[in-house]
Amino acid sequence: MPKVSNKGKQMPESPIRKLVPYADIAKKKGNKVYHLNIGQPDIKTPEVALNAVKNADIRVLEYSHSAGFESYRTKLSQYYKSQGLPVDVQDIIITTGGSEALLFAMGSTMDVDDEIIIPEPFYANYNGFSTASGVKVVPVISTIDDGFALPPIAAFEKLITSKTKAILICNPGNPTGYLYSKEEIQQLAEIVKKHDLFLIADEVYREFIYDENDKHYSVMNVPGIEENAIMIDSVSKRYSMCGARIGCIVSKNKELMATAMKFAQARLSPPTFAQIASEAALETPQSYFTEVIEEYKERRDTLVSELNKIEGVKVATPKGAFYCIAQLPVKNADDFAQWLLESYHNNGETVMIAPAAGFYSTPNVGLNEVRIAYVLKKEDLVRSVQILKEALRVYNA
Amino acid sequence: MPKVSNKGKQMPESPIRKLVPYADIAKKKGNKVYHLNIGQPDIKTPEVALNAVKNADIRVLEYSHSAGFESYRTKLSQYYKSQGLPVDVQDIIITTGGSEALLFAMGSTMDVDDEIIIPEPFYANYNGFSTASGVKVVPVISTIDDGFALPPIAAFEKLITSKTKAILICNPGNPTGYLYSKEEIQQLAEIVKKHDLFLIADEVYREFIYDENDKHYSVMNVPGIEENAIMIDSVSKRYSMCGARIGCIVSKNKELMATAMKFAQARLSPPTFAQIASEAALETPQSYFTEVIEEYKERRDTLVSELNKIEGVKVATPKGAFYCIAQLPVKNADDFAQWLLESYHNNGETVMIAPAAGFYSTPNVGLNEVRIAYVLKKEDLVRSVQILKEALRVYNA
Repeated sequence: MPKVSNKGKQMPESPIRKLVPYADIAKKKGNKVYHLNIGQPDIKTPEVALNAVKNADIRVLEYSHSAGFESYRTKLSQYYKSQGLPVDVQDIIITTGGSEALLFAMGSTMDVDDEIIIPEPFYANYNGFSTASGVKVVPVISTIDDGFALPPIAAFEKLITSKTKAILICNPGNPTGYLYSKEEIQQLAEIVKKHDLFLIADEVYREFIYDENDKHYSVMNVPGIEENAIMIDSVSKRYSMCGARIGCIVSKNKELMATAMKFAQARLSPPTFAQIASEAALETPQSYFTEVIEEYKERRDTLVSELNKIEGVKVATPKGAFYCIAQLPVKNADDFAQWLLESYHNNGETVMIAPAAGFYSTPNVGLNEVRIAYVLKKEDLVRSVQILKEALRVYNA
Repeated sequence: MPKVSNKGKQMPESPIRKLVPYADIAKKKGNKVYHLNIGQPDIKTPEVALNAVKNADIRVLEYSHSAGFESYRTKLSQYYKSQGLPVDVQDIIITTGGSEALLFAMGSTMDVDDEIIIPEPFYANYNGFSTASGVKVVPVISTIDDGFALPPIAAFEKLITSKTKAILICNPGNPTGYLYSKEEIQQLAEIVKKHDLFLIADEVYREFIYDENDKHYSVMNVPGIEENAIMIDSVSKRYSMCGARIGCIVSKNKELMATAMKFAQARLSPPTFAQIASEAALETPQSYFTEVIEEYKERRDTLVSELNKIEGVKVATPKGAFYCIAQLPVKNADDFAQWLLESYHNNGETVMIAPAAGFYSTPNVGLNEVRIAYVLKKEDLVRSVQILKEALRVYNA
């Protein structure tokens, strides 16, 4: 019998997936499960995007250009410029989700056994893309005690070897909600310039910033690292269009983009319907975002204030995105999350949370932390935290 | 300045791409270019598929299941069964095009420096997926003299090493149009069983078979190699939906599918709009296929008979798909193809052909061959071959 590859064996499972059978059990018992574990927003997709697909006059559903519609790239460049990011048409390749943009970035910058430094906790699928690319993740730990701020730059310096090719950040962060300051981005810029590394920034949550005094600072805005900076972007969260699977890789580095383009050509083109939707989504009125941001801000505030009412719970207030990491008064959040689904209910209701250990690359870190997504409406968040509070009391009793 | 990866440098460019600037020159001069070089059919996409997307009632464009809609997989399984292929729902993962299915297949079966044997000439992007996966392509040559039939099985045996993990075929073939016989598939089955290899069959052109006595024989139909067989499929050609970017990986090997599923989870889900279209496309009436196959058969017959009228041209009559390889009375088809665009026109018209050398992995093979796609209507094919004939006369004079 033929054997699967070692790479395939090493591919990580989703840290949430192992809980799914228990969620199914809870639902089969008739219990309602509040999903605090997933990043699928319940926000309506802009009409303008959905209508563009409905009204598209397609006779033959053709391949598009491997870099994506030129019309879309042109408008996207204008969008970035309107946001203060100096991105030209030729700096953009449209990809199948931010996922593919990350794969192209890794494939174009790293060979087998090369190393990429990532502040942890980080988006769990970075592990999957790294394994698929044969690349080694070198984590640098950030902690809940300082709200998951950038670790001291000396911690990065210590980890850089001849194999190090890139630093990857998610800004604002999934799962931490942390927003890097201009100073932190500049520190990273200096170190990548000094060591000739790429700085890959996953900025798919760029628009989701909740405090007036906070401002997103993109790697595309840092003078002097034009050749180092690679931005990963996606329409998934911005327009609540996760199912479109449209993202892009952006860089001023022409050799990098020509290389990424070869990966893009091999897979022919990004999906056509979804490009139509994404291009039209750029016409979404500002009022849509204002409302969405307001809604998320209220959800964040609700979640954080409710969580803070539980004794023994510590939460790093997220500045952006729609996740937070909470420390719970339990030894093993994995066990607690399973117990919540398998053995607990409160008036026929329970919650599903994502144990945070799966977002760390270092073993045995974050064992008492969970990631909570605030993609549910306020009443549901209030009720979810109420359940969590009661459950913690019972679990710890 | 940071450097791109060796992998990125080694990623092949499309064998057609280098001709694109010359095609642009021809068009700027005002010449009409007949595109015999591309596999984008001009056939109308089934209304039922396009209408399903128009009529979809979407509020939030959500992620789908990482394996694709369960409803789609269920109907797809029924479709395969109706075609005589014993494919169950759990044997299918929906992918972003056949391209992603191939990447998942390679990632799940092969580690860096492992080897995959592929009869050449082969679909050029197999090189790209292999390079991206860190896998070495070991070509086994098939020739125009026997119509690109399967090379003797002894030729495969000779190439098998401890690094060999799979044999990849395209059936019917792009670029050859060759359809493997039941006997040939059985020979391959024996050798993969003997050496514990995977047999990956790209069967995206399965429905495009033109002679009444010919029948497609799928790797899913071979008893005894259930653990070895991996089928790659796509809706791109079947429903003229290249821009959907929907395909699938199919296997009875549970460990393989569980492994592929981890790759699928890392990239979250295949595109939602396109899955709606693809699921609906399964309702396409048989009359659509009958007409399409009839149309392609006529195009093939037209193309082959016209080509055969040119002195010094040899063509392997394709049995399926919509490509053929033709040997031209020139030394270097690359040079001729460029000349056609750069320096030639016949009453303001010229043709673009794909030099076949790019479809071989062995250097300096197929230098006088070209791939011709018969995706244009008959009159255009007749005119194209007329131009080719005149051009050859002038070029060789």
